[in-house]
Amino acid sequence: MNACGVVVEYNPFHNGHYYHLQEARKQTGADCMIACMSGNYLQRGEPAIVSKWTRTKMALSGGADIVIELPYPFATSNAEYFAYGSISILEAMGAEAFCFGSESGNMDDFITAVDVFQSSRHQLDAKISELMAKGYSYPKTSSIAFADIGGQTLDLSTPNNILGFEYVKASVLNGYSIRPETIQRKSAQYHDEELGKGVIASATAIRKAIFSSSSANTADYLPSPSYDLLNEDHSRFNKMNWEMLFPFFKYKVLTSTKEKLSSYYQVEEGLENRIKECVLHAETFNEYMTALKTKRYTWTRLQRASLHIFADAVKEEIKSALKSPPPYLRVLGMSKAGQQYLSHMKKKTPLPFVTTLSKFSHPLLELELRTSAVYYHIAKKSSGTVFNEYAQPPVMFDEREQAFKNS
Amino acid sequence: MNACGVVVEYNPFHNGHYYHLQEARKQTGADCMIACMSGNYLQRGEPAIVSKWTRTKMALSGGADIVIELPYPFATSNAEYFAYGSISILEAMGAEAFCFGSESGNMDDFITAVDVFQSSRHQLDAKISELMAKGYSYPKTSSIAFADIGGQTLDLSTPNNILGFEYVKASVLNGYSIRPETIQRKSAQYHDEELGKGVIASATAIRKAIFSSSSANTADYLPSPSYDLLNEDHSRFNKMNWEMLFPFFKYKVLTSTKEKLSSYYQVEEGLENRIKECVLHAETFNEYMTALKTKRYTWTRLQRASLHIFADAVKEEIKSALKSPPPYLRVLGMSKAGQQYLSHMKKKTPLPFVTTLSKFSHPLLELELRTSAVYYHIAKKSSGTVFNEYAQPPVMFDEREQAFKNS
Repeated sequence: MNACGVVVEYNPFHNGHYYHLQEARKQTGADCMIACMSGNYLQRGEPAIVSKWTRTKMALSGGADIVIELPYPFATSNAEYFAYGSISILEAMGAEAFCFGSESGNMDDFITAVDVFQSSRHQLDAKISELMAKGYSYPKTSSIAFADIGGQTLDLSTPNNILGFEYVKASVLNGYSIRPETIQRKSAQYHDEELGKGVIASATAIRKAIFSSSSANTADYLPSPSYDLLNEDHSRFNKMNWEMLFPFFKYKVLTSTKEKLSSYYQVEEGLENRIKECVLHAETFNEYMTALKTKRYTWTRLQRASLHIFADAVKEEIKSALKSPPPYLRVLGMSKAGQQYLSHMKKKTPLPFVTTLSKFSHPLLELELRTSAVYYHIAKKSSGTVFNEYAQPPVMFDEREQAFKNS
Repeated sequence: MNACGVVVEYNPFHNGHYYHLQEARKQTGADCMIACMSGNYLQRGEPAIVSKWTRTKMALSGGADIVIELPYPFATSNAEYFAYGSISILEAMGAEAFCFGSESGNMDDFITAVDVFQSSRHQLDAKISELMAKGYSYPKTSSIAFADIGGQTLDLSTPNNILGFEYVKASVLNGYSIRPETIQRKSAQYHDEELGKGVIASATAIRKAIFSSSSANTADYLPSPSYDLLNEDHSRFNKMNWEMLFPFFKYKVLTSTKEKLSSYYQVEEGLENRIKECVLHAETFNEYMTALKTKRYTWTRLQRASLHIFADAVKEEIKSALKSPPPYLRVLGMSKAGQQYLSHMKKKTPLPFVTTLSKFSHPLLELELRTSAVYYHIAKKSSGTVFNEYAQPPVMFDEREQAFKNS
């Protein structure tokens, strides 16, 4: 079998994601599509609007054959570690290619950019340090520095080009055999906040519509199974965003000493003092973040630091996890074709597959379950029953019947 | 001036407390009544139904002249440390006597019991160890052991006799000059759960009535200023009990590793494993506690361990605090007479008075403020403004006008 990987968040799964899966399958000729997907927390340092289980169902009903969970430290990290974790998983899954959407759409641009990076690494680092000393955020300085040293062929100021560059870099630097491919993104831009007129809108705009009190209809922008799954999820669980976590985050910050706060990943350079101060007077997450934001840190960087406090993710724990590729392959769901591919891969991959939680243990999985348990605790509507991830088998999807089994 | 101390929780301040203050003043001939009062968390390891500020107002309008805060580690500890902390504060306040309510009512019984304790300490410890090895709880074994070695004159199975014994013991063992006195308690028993027919009911029964959906009227059992203060408080803040803390406690346990849980005070002998397990399936605090309870630990002991997890109170922090008497005297409120007494005492006491938080710092006070901030965070009704303890001056009460100033 010929597998192609994609790196995704599906927050939620929309028409653009559907298009990407179909095109990637066509372009690579794959008969198995593997989605390496973030769990309940995402790269921008925030909770997913619906749980990984609902998003797994969306993915399977939208064309993915296997969904593998990207562990928390990678899923909530900057583009570099996010890419390192996910491409390592797709390599370990034996995918022949991975295919990412980008603003550029031209694979040569990425290959050239990684070449430039490899040959000018020290020069680049020096330039970044110089710019950061002036108080700019990391993403901004790195894009300027990169253009400066001759990486002009690829615009590294757009989010999907940045991610694509990191995917290709991770694969080249680690000597992986997986082949990178790219597809130009259609219509919507990643950061677009409003629903447009086409059938493709950004996940950001769709989430904004879902949370807004206006009756903006998102049905046009989501494949119908995805739309139904979203509504079904929201009948049992709260729509999750940072505002839902905030009362707990505030409790956590209020009960923690500054020393303790500084033990969490990405809480550095005295950030604990400002976090303590800003949380005390804030009634909402937005108030807190607005007070906390400075030129030095991006909004995302501050969300990530806050998420690690919320999740009790300490520096050593995350740093040690990020040193090596993810050490296991946790299967969240599969189609019939995915199931075939998995039984075929079981003998080939060096990493253990995790389908039954009680049969496997690892500190990284323990962290995943801790952060997940608290997601369900907060997402659960008061009338609901306790959701126990230990009792949750992988989602099984029958593509011919378009139905989920034992889930 | 002649001051008499009382050790109190006032949860809430009721007719029995009023009677106790009047009788203690009469019996000791004091012209200044000093209440050493727990802050927002109490000896049974639970939050107070209303904050320390409202309870301070209740105390001042009910006959107290000065209210001093008993710091968290002592206020939430067993009878021995609770007594050590509070009697040390009253000694440092220069009170000539302290006066406690007891089932016995006979001071000689307490003096004899402390003599027996001093002369048979080793024998007593051996007997307690022997009984505890059989799996009984500490309060039970110590009462049996004490009767066994000849302490029959005082019944140490009743809660106020136990506390009284510890008060007298603390004063004798530390060579304090403060003189112990006792008053027999009227009518209600500490543990009574129902409102009786008299004007005195236990605080337990009053709280039960307040939380019950029935329209049981508590006005008969509270002095009218206390009743009004309670209602006024509940128009701005939630009625606090463990159920209010539980969602946050559950979040805390779910996000903590077992190793981290075992770092909290009183989480010992593998209790962290059972706490993790019991919290996962519990929807309410009562469900959690019912699942957690065994013969080995009293309900109170388990509430205390849970409270320390909630409050992020680690072993070293509490153990080191309990080694010495409270290191400062934090004034929560005063009457005119109390104000006079305080200015007179300022030159005499070796300990610093704390009235303005920004002018004093101590790790113990920092712990107090952390645990208090989270109390207000949870107690606050959604429409309320953020309560900031740093901005709260001591409550000033004019007994002639029966009014509060600058509070």
